[in-house]
Amino acid sequence: MSIQKPKGTQDLLPGEIEKWQYIESKARELCLRFNYREIRTPIFEHTELFKRGVGETTDIVEKEMYTFLDKGDRSISLRPEGTAGVVRSYVENKLYGEPDISKLYYIGPMFRYEQPQAGRYRQFHQFGIEAFGSVDPGLDAEVIALGFTFYKELGLKDVTVEINSVGNPAVREVYREHVQRFFAPVKDQLCKDCQSRYDRNPMRILDCKIDQKYCEGAPTILEHLDEECSAHFQAVQDHLQAMDIPFRINPRLVRGLDYYTHTAFEYKAAGIGAIDTIGGGGRYNGLVGQIGGSDQPGVGLGLGIERILLVLQAQGIDIPAAKPLDVYVIGLGDAAEKECVKLLQSLRLAGLAAEKDYLGRKIKAKMKSADRYHATYVAILGDDELARGEITVKTMATGEQETLPLSSFVQTLQSRIRS
Amino acid sequence: MSIQKPKGTQDLLPGEIEKWQYIESKARELCLRFNYREIRTPIFEHTELFKRGVGETTDIVEKEMYTFLDKGDRSISLRPEGTAGVVRSYVENKLYGEPDISKLYYIGPMFRYEQPQAGRYRQFHQFGIEAFGSVDPGLDAEVIALGFTFYKELGLKDVTVEINSVGNPAVREVYREHVQRFFAPVKDQLCKDCQSRYDRNPMRILDCKIDQKYCEGAPTILEHLDEECSAHFQAVQDHLQAMDIPFRINPRLVRGLDYYTHTAFEYKAAGIGAIDTIGGGGRYNGLVGQIGGSDQPGVGLGLGIERILLVLQAQGIDIPAAKPLDVYVIGLGDAAEKECVKLLQSLRLAGLAAEKDYLGRKIKAKMKSADRYHATYVAILGDDELARGEITVKTMATGEQETLPLSSFVQTLQSRIRS
Repeated sequence: MSIQKPKGTQDLLPGEIEKWQYIESKARELCLRFNYREIRTPIFEHTELFKRGVGETTDIVEKEMYTFLDKGDRSISLRPEGTAGVVRSYVENKLYGEPDISKLYYIGPMFRYEQPQAGRYRQFHQFGIEAFGSVDPGLDAEVIALGFTFYKELGLKDVTVEINSVGNPAVREVYREHVQRFFAPVKDQLCKDCQSRYDRNPMRILDCKIDQKYCEGAPTILEHLDEECSAHFQAVQDHLQAMDIPFRINPRLVRGLDYYTHTAFEYKAAGIGAIDTIGGGGRYNGLVGQIGGSDQPGVGLGLGIERILLVLQAQGIDIPAAKPLDVYVIGLGDAAEKECVKLLQSLRLAGLAAEKDYLGRKIKAKMKSADRYHATYVAILGDDELARGEITVKTMATGEQETLPLSSFVQTLQSRIRS
Repeated sequence: MSIQKPKGTQDLLPGEIEKWQYIESKARELCLRFNYREIRTPIFEHTELFKRGVGETTDIVEKEMYTFLDKGDRSISLRPEGTAGVVRSYVENKLYGEPDISKLYYIGPMFRYEQPQAGRYRQFHQFGIEAFGSVDPGLDAEVIALGFTFYKELGLKDVTVEINSVGNPAVREVYREHVQRFFAPVKDQLCKDCQSRYDRNPMRILDCKIDQKYCEGAPTILEHLDEECSAHFQAVQDHLQAMDIPFRINPRLVRGLDYYTHTAFEYKAAGIGAIDTIGGGGRYNGLVGQIGGSDQPGVGLGLGIERILLVLQAQGIDIPAAKPLDVYVIGLGDAAEKECVKLLQSLRLAGLAAEKDYLGRKIKAKMKSADRYHATYVAILGDDELARGEITVKTMATGEQETLPLSSFVQTLQSRIRS
């Protein structure tokens, strides 16, 4: 009996993998331009980290983590998201001691035990950035701009940016009371979850899908921002305008976690149904301290790679095709075949993508194989040609055939393909 | 209290990460040239896969796996190596049904619960290739050549290739008896492990560090190869010679697992102490069938990234430096600062790596920051210059300053850096 991949995981195979490679290399290249540098943290962390960094009462930590004891009886969890590990690493490696701010990015797998569905996997992949050490609202805008530019350069259409301010802890304390007062008359009609949220975190009621009918006319946090928070939010908008990043203010965009401060934002895309958020982030001036480090401000974003692939497919956007094979080499006869082994290695050492047959097929089947690899050239060497020091080269696009001196063949092809 | 990374794991930070990026992009680029395409399989698999694909009685499966039950009570293990998952994926996705052979590569994290030491981590990283569907000895040689070329192009010095044939099952059955007969007189003096190996897998005694004194004069498998195995082994050598890959035959190089057939090989490097193997592989014509698929032949290799980093360090080899920052932008005055936000985004959209200050620092500190980023240019814009439509550009290598028209500044820098 054969063994299957675990439920909710994917095999990424040739044909599909090229899209991933393209998205990732675009992310890396964009991060270089925005001066973010890569960080890689372990695939698993001490479970305690996610309790502190994601929140002990969140669904992620309560229900969705792959948590287990290692052979040394430590509670370990596969990372369910990327920020906590990066913050832990920033603190543990004392990056806050460096003279410049830390601008970091990561790309990699994350793990949540959820019911798999279209575009949602138990092993999924995120690209994220985190910038630590500055309270400058220009940095919030830069983070938002990087994500928007990323989607745009990948070719995604109709991506919109929604922003909001979630204030600071003092502002949220006041706002919280206003929200409670607003919902007090309907408290008993709210869903069970929201009745519990009413005391613990009433702002989350505004996010509830069931209770939207009670949310009409609810106070927004924007009406309660203090001077510092208003100035920060205005400055973020000014920066976005200067950078020509379109955005709209969504006063309902609240992130429930305590460590979020000031800016919250989300990206939405058309054509993928009701759940149209494809990425988001915000400022989290409280998180570094909460995880146990020097009290440094931070701002970041996280984008799902699988979400991007969904949008690309829904919008019919093609990713640039994989690089074709440069040359397929065919030897006819024993001496010629041996010479072809040598040629193949020389072509590859010269930087060309080259291939030969390994199935002992006849020439017709070899030509078909070259076709499937989209080979630019096929080089055919017979024993007679070898004796004359020549080789036949066919340009597959035109069908044109020519005879080249064997001694300069590799160099000739190299200069043609490189030019 | 702050939380640490789990024991035996690493944070890969800017400064170090560039080496990883370089090694990985070299691997990817080389695989394109050799016509191998990427495959990504899940980080965890059903535990049963590794029992079948690595071997139930191996140390890896018996002692070193991160195995746990998921919330659906499935026994899951973090992958301890790369081949089993790729074989599982090859079978499950019926890649054997394609007209060409499957040439695949992978790069990624693997997990073994071992005692951490220099260059050995619980999360470590491998680059591997697997080629399925052909018994051609030329393919064995291609795999060996790819690994050797990889090390060489990374700059590793004195890498040697050792090869051997481990025959086929029939040959090994005969050889096994010869080995038992050879060790019979000293059986009781062998170490405890080897006394047990004597019956189960006597060939592994030859690998034992403790019992080397009893191995002198032991029969080698090469003396017992049948005609088919000898021809295969000779053809591998002929191909390596044609490709100019130096190698030596090591008749003691045996791989214990039953599914290995014909070619076994290892790469060794100088300068990293007694454990000098940095990678290896072989042909495994029995593995695909054992994991539960169509009985396809395979050949592959696996290389440890951490081992390569050890060699690079021991041999004092420098990896090409990270791309420096192209421009650092400094605004002096409110209007100029705002213009700089715009310029920064324009520079980045034009493909340049650009940065500004986010700490409200004075110009001297900003210049120092630009220096730390190895900026090629610093662009300075004051309110006066902005009014005149000009910008000052300093070439950091020479100290030379010039005044450029603001309107064409981005284009000018773009053409200078791109040329």
